[in-house]
Amino acid sequence: MSETPEERYDEKAAKAALAAKLDAADELAGLRDRFVLDTASDHAGGAAGVYLDGNSLGALPCAVPGRVEDVVRRQWGELRIRSWDESGWWTAPERIGDRIAPLVGAAPGQIVVGDSTSVNVFKALVAAVRMAGESGSSPRDEIVVDASTFPTDGYIAESAARMTGCRLIPVLPADVPGVLGPRTAAVLLNHVDYRTGRLHDLPGLTAAVHAAGALAVWDLCHSAGALPVELDAGAVDLAVGCTYKYLNGGPGSPAYLYVRRELQPRFDSPLPGWTSHAEPFGMRPEYEAGAGVVRGRVGTPDILSMLALEAALEVWEGVSVKAVRAKSLALTDFFLECVDAYVPQGLVESVTPSAHAERGSQVALRCARAGDVMRQLIERGVIGDYRAPDILRFGFTPLYVGFADVERAARVLGEVLG
Amino acid sequence: MSETPEERYDEKAAKAALAAKLDAADELAGLRDRFVLDTASDHAGGAAGVYLDGNSLGALPCAVPGRVEDVVRRQWGELRIRSWDESGWWTAPERIGDRIAPLVGAAPGQIVVGDSTSVNVFKALVAAVRMAGESGSSPRDEIVVDASTFPTDGYIAESAARMTGCRLIPVLPADVPGVLGPRTAAVLLNHVDYRTGRLHDLPGLTAAVHAAGALAVWDLCHSAGALPVELDAGAVDLAVGCTYKYLNGGPGSPAYLYVRRELQPRFDSPLPGWTSHAEPFGMRPEYEAGAGVVRGRVGTPDILSMLALEAALEVWEGVSVKAVRAKSLALTDFFLECVDAYVPQGLVESVTPSAHAERGSQVALRCARAGDVMRQLIERGVIGDYRAPDILRFGFTPLYVGFADVERAARVLGEVLG
Repeated sequence: MSETPEERYDEKAAKAALAAKLDAADELAGLRDRFVLDTASDHAGGAAGVYLDGNSLGALPCAVPGRVEDVVRRQWGELRIRSWDESGWWTAPERIGDRIAPLVGAAPGQIVVGDSTSVNVFKALVAAVRMAGESGSSPRDEIVVDASTFPTDGYIAESAARMTGCRLIPVLPADVPGVLGPRTAAVLLNHVDYRTGRLHDLPGLTAAVHAAGALAVWDLCHSAGALPVELDAGAVDLAVGCTYKYLNGGPGSPAYLYVRRELQPRFDSPLPGWTSHAEPFGMRPEYEAGAGVVRGRVGTPDILSMLALEAALEVWEGVSVKAVRAKSLALTDFFLECVDAYVPQGLVESVTPSAHAERGSQVALRCARAGDVMRQLIERGVIGDYRAPDILRFGFTPLYVGFADVERAARVLGEVLG
Repeated sequence: MSETPEERYDEKAAKAALAAKLDAADELAGLRDRFVLDTASDHAGGAAGVYLDGNSLGALPCAVPGRVEDVVRRQWGELRIRSWDESGWWTAPERIGDRIAPLVGAAPGQIVVGDSTSVNVFKALVAAVRMAGESGSSPRDEIVVDASTFPTDGYIAESAARMTGCRLIPVLPADVPGVLGPRTAAVLLNHVDYRTGRLHDLPGLTAAVHAAGALAVWDLCHSAGALPVELDAGAVDLAVGCTYKYLNGGPGSPAYLYVRRELQPRFDSPLPGWTSHAEPFGMRPEYEAGAGVVRGRVGTPDILSMLALEAALEVWEGVSVKAVRAKSLALTDFFLECVDAYVPQGLVESVTPSAHAERGSQVALRCARAGDVMRQLIERGVIGDYRAPDILRFGFTPLYVGFADVERAARVLGEVLG
């Protein structure tokens, strides 16, 4: 069973050669130059580092530092208050939303940027429950939530349920169709599972939710920017997502909210801040919601972070999401292949589906002492992350991760576990 | 009645001389060097500009651009995900809260930075209603709100009332004591009125609210950084504030939430995001609120804006809020005096109280065609703002506004109206 050192060497050489060939043929390879990578810190451990944590914090796009400097020094420092008009600060939430729109299959005018994902989940779920309750004779008082969700969605769903008098029903996505019924108001689902990397069936589940007369709310944190998301085509009602993972907006950059155009006139926000008003500078004591997705706004937009995100989104210029998806699948396939070749049998087990249709852009490996193993990987320059209790998580950002990176990461994992 | 040109000249010369004398004696004058002012843009109209809109957007502190560059290029660009620990990103909301604390009379551990003022008003009011309802036999189902409030507080209070089953009672602050009763759950008040600049009696009104068994929530947007705020001494329950006015945090910089220490164990947030969890990286499906003011957190902290704010707060190093208040009153007194001297009788009327105990750090002048007048002032380099329907608003930031600025602003106003 065991290979000789020569055979193992040959295998590594073959994999490295294959990686080089794949990189040479990669039509997206040039996009790496749009990011700050291969810095002194990346080389601190000797060999070049491999950043496979873009699904937690995307790398810095080259356009960002200069833009931020201009926003700080000129727009804020010199123009000051005039920048709300002259530098386009006031309209930034929808303008930047429209830049995200093509990445998630949305026509313009349906996305507003601002607040955190958690806050947007709250807006979306409460608004969904309110819209679901508008018509029909029987009360719709159940919120269904993905039981395997990233915790914040579950916590916020629980609060939304409590504050709207709903019952919260946590089930695994596969079991969602079975619990839908005439009392279902809204269903909150993740497009890609944050732990396992499993990709859920957005159009299919949305159709099932609609068949039950309820509204579908999707969390796109782990899919937008890594694979095609078809919000309009899938007839999704509401969606939220962060911008600091595959959209590279920076640490804690503002999240976004999608409200399908037809629903916008009925979108009744639980957080009707002044900037969502029909006449925000009218300073009227009575609230009157503005027209369009501006209803998803709350307070004063956070300009520094928002304009950093706007610059970050320039990396998508001329990039096809379809090509990104093809590369993403090739990267994760190759990673699994290399792990299989380098890591002794039985030490890790992929919990990420092998079927392409069920895979996002990450690979999650179950592993004993996973926290300790990840620490050793990071010491050797392979940056992934650990998710309790036993998951090594590797995210593959097709815009800047190459096949040689993948081969190296798997090789180092083999060395750590070998 | 009318002066000769000579008399008018003499008066202007006298006022300008007085301004110079006041500036020379100003112990805070040197603080102006901590800000970016007197830029090319400020001189675009010929004479130096006068920025009296720090109550809308504070000027850029000199420490900010360099800090932001470091956060972007090194912390994000090089260290990437490691910065959550190594650059202190994770602990920023409470660390920066503790930097704001001394400016609002709060002991450490009671302020968390994040989200917008509107979102924080929602958290504070809903939590207040929940706490008020915990004890006592009769239901407490009324929220009292300042009827003259900046609109967002009123809109959010209405939403909080709707979602907690309360009735909303809008009254002017002076009438608050008269409507308090056994059904009052919470009262939302502004420390300084955004339009008139009137300073309300924080300890007195808080005591009245407490006497009725209710909780007091204060909005400090127009007071913090301009005058002493005594949250702890006044036994305030909850407070919120923005950081982009007198705290100079930058456009849309994160707001803050104060939760009095004794109330923290009972603070039950309507937005229980993952970062407020007792074990945020445990990824547990059940929510368990963390200990302390961390309960006021929601989603992933917005690092760029938050660390810009942290750098901005360094301007307070060694600054006495008492001295700031003394200068603020001297500035507004002098402005009223100059307006009286320069503006023909009857053309403007101050709606800001003349009594020091009732005045914030701004002067609001009622004026016909106020929008047009403000446009002309801005064209001549005097930057204030207009609040519908008839208010010229001038904010005086004692850290960087001097007496010569004040004299010049009043003189230009006189010219525009003369």
